[in-house]
Amino acid sequence: MLVVMEQDATEVQVERVLTHLAGHGLEIQRLDAPDRTIIGIASGGPPQLDVVAAMEGVHEVLAFKSPYKLANRTYQANGTLVRLGDTVIGGTEVVVMAGPCLVQSEAQIFGAAAAVRRAGGRVLCADAFGAVTSPYGFQGLGIAGLELLCAAAAHEGLKTASEVMDAAQIDTLSRFVDILEVGAQNMQNFTLLRELGRARTPVVLKRGNSATIEEWLLAAEYVLCGGNSKVVLCECGIRTFERYTSNTLDLSAIQAIKTLSHLPVLVDPSHGTGRQDHVAPMSRAALAAGADGLIIEIQFGADGAGVDVDTRSVGAAQFADLMSDLRVIAPAFRRTICPELVSVPF
Amino acid sequence: MLVVMEQDATEVQVERVLTHLAGHGLEIQRLDAPDRTIIGIASGGPPQLDVVAAMEGVHEVLAFKSPYKLANRTYQANGTLVRLGDTVIGGTEVVVMAGPCLVQSEAQIFGAAAAVRRAGGRVLCADAFGAVTSPYGFQGLGIAGLELLCAAAAHEGLKTASEVMDAAQIDTLSRFVDILEVGAQNMQNFTLLRELGRARTPVVLKRGNSATIEEWLLAAEYVLCGGNSKVVLCECGIRTFERYTSNTLDLSAIQAIKTLSHLPVLVDPSHGTGRQDHVAPMSRAALAAGADGLIIEIQFGADGAGVDVDTRSVGAAQFADLMSDLRVIAPAFRRTICPELVSVPF
Amino acid sequence: MLVVMEQDATEVQVERVLTHLAGHGLEIQRLDAPDRTIIGIASGGPPQLDVVAAMEGVHEVLAFKSPYKLANRTYQANGTLVRLGDTVIGGTEVVVMAGPCLVQSEAQIFGAAAAVRRAGGRVLCADAFGAVTSPYGFQGLGIAGLELLCAAAAHEGLKTASEVMDAAQIDTLSRFVDILEVGAQNMQNFTLLRELGRARTPVVLKRGNSATIEEWLLAAEYVLCGGNSKVVLCECGIRTFERYTSNTLDLSAIQAIKTLSHLPVLVDPSHGTGRQDHVAPMSRAALAAGADGLIIEIQFGADGAGVDVDTRSVGAAQFADLMSDLRVIAPAFRRTICPELVSVPF
Amino acid sequence: MLVVMEQDATEVQVERVLTHLAGHGLEIQRLDAPDRTIIGIASGGPPQLDVVAAMEGVHEVLAFKSPYKLANRTYQANGTLVRLGDTVIGGTEVVVMAGPCLVQSEAQIFGAAAAVRRAGGRVLCADAFGAVTSPYGFQGLGIAGLELLCAAAAHEGLKTASEVMDAAQIDTLSRFVDILEVGAQNMQNFTLLRELGRARTPVVLKRGNSATIEEWLLAAEYVLCGGNSKVVLCECGIRTFERYTSNTLDLSAIQAIKTLSHLPVLVDPSHGTGRQDHVAPMSRAALAAGADGLIIEIQFGADGAGVDVDTRSVGAAQFADLMSDLRVIAPAFRRTICPELVSVPF
Repeated sequence: MLVVMEQDATEVQVERVLTHLAGHGLEIQRLDAPDRTIIGIASGGPPQLDVVAAMEGVHEVLAFKSPYKLANRTYQANGTLVRLGDTVIGGTEVVVMAGPCLVQSEAQIFGAAAAVRRAGGRVLCADAFGAVTSPYGFQGLGIAGLELLCAAAAHEGLKTASEVMDAAQIDTLSRFVDILEVGAQNMQNFTLLRELGRARTPVVLKRGNSATIEEWLLAAEYVLCGGNSKVVLCECGIRTFERYTSNTLDLSAIQAIKTLSHLPVLVDPSHGTGRQDHVAPMSRAALAAGADGLIIEIQFGADGAGVDVDTRSVGAAQFADLMSDLRVIAPAFRRTICPELVSVPF
Repeated sequence: MLVVMEQDATEVQVERVLTHLAGHGLEIQRLDAPDRTIIGIASGGPPQLDVVAAMEGVHEVLAFKSPYKLANRTYQANGTLVRLGDTVIGGTEVVVMAGPCLVQSEAQIFGAAAAVRRAGGRVLCADAFGAVTSPYGFQGLGIAGLELLCAAAAHEGLKTASEVMDAAQIDTLSRFVDILEVGAQNMQNFTLLRELGRARTPVVLKRGNSATIEEWLLAAEYVLCGGNSKVVLCECGIRTFERYTSNTLDLSAIQAIKTLSHLPVLVDPSHGTGRQDHVAPMSRAALAAGADGLIIEIQFGADGAGVDVDTRSVGAAQFADLMSDLRVIAPAFRRTICPELVSVPF
Repeated sequence: MLVVMEQDATEVQVERVLTHLAGHGLEIQRLDAPDRTIIGIASGGPPQLDVVAAMEGVHEVLAFKSPYKLANRTYQANGTLVRLGDTVIGGTEVVVMAGPCLVQSEAQIFGAAAAVRRAGGRVLCADAFGAVTSPYGFQGLGIAGLELLCAAAAHEGLKTASEVMDAAQIDTLSRFVDILEVGAQNMQNFTLLRELGRARTPVVLKRGNSATIEEWLLAAEYVLCGGNSKVVLCECGIRTFERYTSNTLDLSAIQAIKTLSHLPVLVDPSHGTGRQDHVAPMSRAALAAGADGLIIEIQFGADGAGVDVDTRSVGAAQFADLMSDLRVIAPAFRRTICPELVSVPF
Repeated sequence: MLVVMEQDATEVQVERVLTHLAGHGLEIQRLDAPDRTIIGIASGGPPQLDVVAAMEGVHEVLAFKSPYKLANRTYQANGTLVRLGDTVIGGTEVVVMAGPCLVQSEAQIFGAAAAVRRAGGRVLCADAFGAVTSPYGFQGLGIAGLELLCAAAAHEGLKTASEVMDAAQIDTLSRFVDILEVGAQNMQNFTLLRELGRARTPVVLKRGNSATIEEWLLAAEYVLCGGNSKVVLCECGIRTFERYTSNTLDLSAIQAIKTLSHLPVLVDPSHGTGRQDHVAPMSRAALAAGADGLIIEIQFGADGAGVDVDTRSVGAAQFADLMSDLRVIAPAFRRTICPELVSVPF
C-alpha cells in the first residue's frame, strides 16, 4: 500500500499520517520524492483504508497486490522518460549506447567514441572500474579512465555511461558520467541500490542473470523509493542450461516490463548472447519486440584488453552495418534511430 | 565422418567400402538417401582417409568435428527447402501455420480454417491425438479428428499439420496430413525419430524444452540419416527458472541453427511463452531474428477444450491483426507473408 | 476427483455412476484396477458430491486439489511395496540395482552379474536397446542382449531390469525382465506410459531432466490409472546451468515424493552426476535423505562400449567399496543392505 | 601462474621478480600473505619459467590450468582449518551454525542462543542488517542488533556470525562477530570481496544462486589473494526450473569443492530448499556427502519477523531432534557433532 500525500502537504500532516500508521503496528517507509512525500507500507494494511484516505494532506491511497509499488504500471500509467540532456530514453527513438568493455587508453576510447557517433549511437559507455570474475584480470584505470571517457564523449557530442560497483563510488562517478550502470552481478546489492536512490543521476539497472522479473522490479523499487525516479532497466540474458550462447537473452522480458511497469527497458545483446554473430540479429529482434534501446559492446584498439571480449564484441564496421539495418527497419515499428553523422567507410 | 558415394555407384562398390571400414573395426551406418548411398561413421576414423577416398564409387569423404553430419551446414551449403505443394518452407516467404490445440468439432475446425486462410496462414495445424500432461485430460478425437482437419483445410485451400506421438501412428497420419509434428516431449523418442526417417512425409521437429541445440540437431540427424531429408526445426521455448512465461523463448536459437545447419527453423511463440499478450511481440521478434515461419495457436469455438489453452492462444481477430503487422514489417527484412484473402472484420 | 467403487460393485452399478457423471458434462476416465473399479474425473466436479457418494456400489468419493490422484499420498497412506520375487522395493532394505550401460557380450554381462551379486546388489540392469543421443552410436544387441542379460542374472540369482523405449517393445521385454525402465527422455512419451498401464510388469519411471515433480507424478499417474500399480520412481538429475556435473542430482526430490506420494523412489547417481568420483558420496547422501534404492552404472569388459561411459561408471572394486560403506551407514538410518556374498578381492 | 617467494625473501628480491615479469608484459598482482609474498600472474606466462624459478628469493613457481590459484587443491594439499577460538571448521567435527534470520529482540535472540547451545550448535548466527528482496521489508536493528547477538552468544558460550552487505560495514562487524557471512546475492560484489581480503576476520562465502562452481572459487580467490586465508564456502542452493523447493540444493558441490579446493564447505538446507520439512533429511544427506558443517535457520519468538521465514525455518524442538539424529549418524561417517548440553524437553 502507498499513501500519496498532496504536493503541498505540510510536515505536520505527514507526521500525523506516519503516527497513525505506526499506531496500527505497520512497518512504514517514508519516501521524499522530489514533488511530494509518499509513505510505503509493507505487506499488511490498516484496518480502515478510508480513514487514512480522509486524513488531511492525503492525496490518494493506493493498494497493490504486487510487492513493487512505485515501479508498477498501476502507479504511473505513462511510460517514464529518462532524459540525458536532449537524449530521451523511453520515447520514440531507440537509443543506442555503445563502447568498449573497459577504458584502456586515449587512442582506444577516442577511436571508439568516433565510431559510435558516426554510426548513430547516442551514449558512449565503457567501464573505469572493472567487474571481472577473476581477481587476476585487468581492473580498470579508475578516475583516469573516467577522465578519458568524458573527454572522448565530449569531443564527439555523446553522453556517457559507466558501471558503478559500490556505494562509495556513486559521488565520484556522478561527477563524471550521465548515467550509472548497475551490473547484473550487483542487481541485488541492496546497499548500492539504496544509495542510488539518494542520488539524482539516472541509473541503468541490468537484470541479474538469475533474477526473476519480479526481483528485478523490486531492485528498481529500491532506487525509486529513495526518490530517484530516473531508472532504466536492461535485459542482458539469463543463465540457463544452454551454453551455445553465454546466456539466454530473454526478449519476452520486454513485453513483461511494458505490462508490469512504466520504466523504459533496454537490451544488451553483447552480454546477453556472448556471441559476435548474434549481436545483429538479436538487436533487430529486440527492436521488433519493443525495446527502448540497446547497449552494444564494440571492440576497439589492438592493445588487447584485460578482459576477453573477442567473442562477444563487434568491430566498428559491423556496428555501423548493424545501425544502418536498424535505421531501415525502425519505421516499420514506428520508432526512429539517430541518423549517422557521415557515411565514410572505415 | 561421412563417405558419400557416387550417384551411380554400384552395390558391389558400396559393399566393398563397407567391408573395408568394418575391417578397421569402425562402427558404421549405411544411409540409402533417395539419390545416393551415404555411409556414416561414428567417432573415430580409418587410419588412411585418402585410401577410402580413392576407392571406386566414392564421391567424397567428409570429416566432421561435430557429432551431426547430414544436418550440418558443412554437408550442404544451401538452405533446405521443404515443399508442401506450392508452399515452401525455408524460402523468402515467412510461412505461418496456425490452428487450435486440438480438433474438437466440425464447427470449430472449419471456423478456424477460415480464420487462418483469411488472415494469410498457409497451414492449418491441430492435433487429433492429444499430448497432454495429465491422463485425465481430453485425449483427442483420433481418426475422426484427422478427417475433420483435412476437410476443413481442403475447403480453404490450406495444407495440414498434426502431431505424431508414436511410431505406430506414422502411416495413418501420413495418409492424412502434409507435415507431421514431433512435440517437444518426444524430441528424444529415438524409436519415433528412426521410423520418421523411413517415412517420406515432411517433419516439424520441435525442440525439447531442456534440449541443447546440439541435441536438437542430433535428433534431426536421426530422421535425416534414415533418408527423410524434409526436416523443419521449431523453437518453442526452453525451461528456465523464470516462470512469468511458461518457457523462455530462445530466439538466439534461430541464428545458431542458421550457422550450424541448413535446415529451416520456425518459432512457436504460443507454447514458447504461454502468454497471449506475448504472441504478437515475439512473432515480430522471431521474424526480425530470421525465422522461416511461425506456428501460432488460435482459440476457436466456445465449447471449451479439454486442455487449458486460454492463457496462451490468441483469438481470430488478434491473429488477423498480428498477420497485418507482420505483412508491414516483412519487407524491411526482405521477407514476404502470404496476402490476406479478404479484409472483412470479424 | 476419484469415485472409488466397492470391490463387489456390479457392472450395472458402475455404468449407473458413469451415466450420472456424464450427464453432468464431466470428462471421466474409467480405471479397472485389479481389485475394483475407480472413476477418475478431470478438473471440475459434480454439483452434488454427496449424491454420488450415496449411489449404490460407491465406496468413497475422494476430492483432490492436486492433478494426480492415484499417485497421491492421500489416496494411499502406506508406502507402496513393489515386489520382484523376494526382493521388495519400498521396504526397509535399500535395494541396489547395478550393471553396465548396455549388454555387449557374454563375458561382459556374466562378469558384471558376478560383481553385482558379490557386492550385494539385487538387480542386474543393462539395456538391450540403446537410447543414444546420436544415431551413429551403438544401438544395442536387441533380443540377443536380453537373453544374455537373463542368463547372467539367473546364474547369479539376480533380478533383471532393462529399458523400454517404445510401446511396441513392452510385450517382448516383459517376457524377459523383472522390471521395465522408462528412461528420462521418455518420461512424457504418453503412448508408452499408457501402454505400460495395461502391462503387469513393474516399472521404474526415471524423472525427465526438465520435469517438475508434479509432471513426474502425472507421468506415474498415466501408468497407475491403466491399472498397473507397480511403479517405482527414480531421480536421475535435472538439467541446470551447472556443467561441472552432467546434471544436478536433486536429492530434495526424495522428501518431496515421500510427502506427496506413496510410491518408492530410487536415485541414480551415475546419470545424475555423470562423474565417477561423485557416485559414492551421492549414494551415501541419497541413503541419508531416505531413498529406497540406487541404480548404479558399473563399467565392465575391456571391449569399449559404443556409448561413452568412462566418466560416469565405477569399476567393480569401487562398487564393492561403495556397497561396504553403505552397509556400515545403513543401520544409522534404520535401513539394511543385502549382505555381500563373499569378500574375495577383485 | 603463481610465483611463491621464500619466507625470508627481501623486498629487493621481490621487486626484482616483479620487474622481470612486468618486462615480459605480464599482468601481475602482488599478494602479501602473512608469512610470505606471492605474485599472481593472469593468463599467459613468461617464456622461460625456469628463469623465474632460478631467481633469488623465489621458492617455487606454480603453473595452474585453472583460473583460481590460491583456492586450488594443487596449491595446498591439506584441507584448510578455520578456527573460531576452540571451534574448528574443516576438521572432524561437523560444525553447526544456527539462529533466526534477523535479530529482532532481546527475548528472541537469548531464547535462540539457549536453544542452539542446548542442542549442540557452536555458532549463533543472525543478521543485524537485512538483505531483503523488497525495500519495504524489515531491514534489521543495525548495531543494536549486533550488541544483542553478541550478548546472547556470550551468555551461552557460542561464537557469532552475521551477514556483511557492504565493504563499509566490514570494520564494524569485525569488532562484533567471529565470522562474516557473504550472502548469495553478494557473491560477485567484487569490491566487498576485495576488502574482505584485507580484513583478518574469517569469512563464510555463500554460493550465488546462479554461480558455477568455478565462479564461486574465483570469488573465494578474491578474498584469499588479499591475504585473508580464512575462507569457508557454503552451498545454499542454485536456481533451477523446479519450484517445489525455493532453490535446488546441489549436494554434488561438496565433492566438487573437496576435489578442486582445500577450503571447508558448509551446507545451508534452510535457504537451499526453502522448506521446513526438507531441512532434516537434507542435513543428514549433507553430512553423508561430506559437508564440514551446516547453517540452519531456526524460528524464534512469537513477534513475527519482517521477513517471511515461516516456510523454511525449523522450530527449537525440531532443531534439537535434528541434532540428535546427526549425532547418531555422524560416527558412521567418522565425524563428530558437539554434544548437547542437557536434554531437557522444550
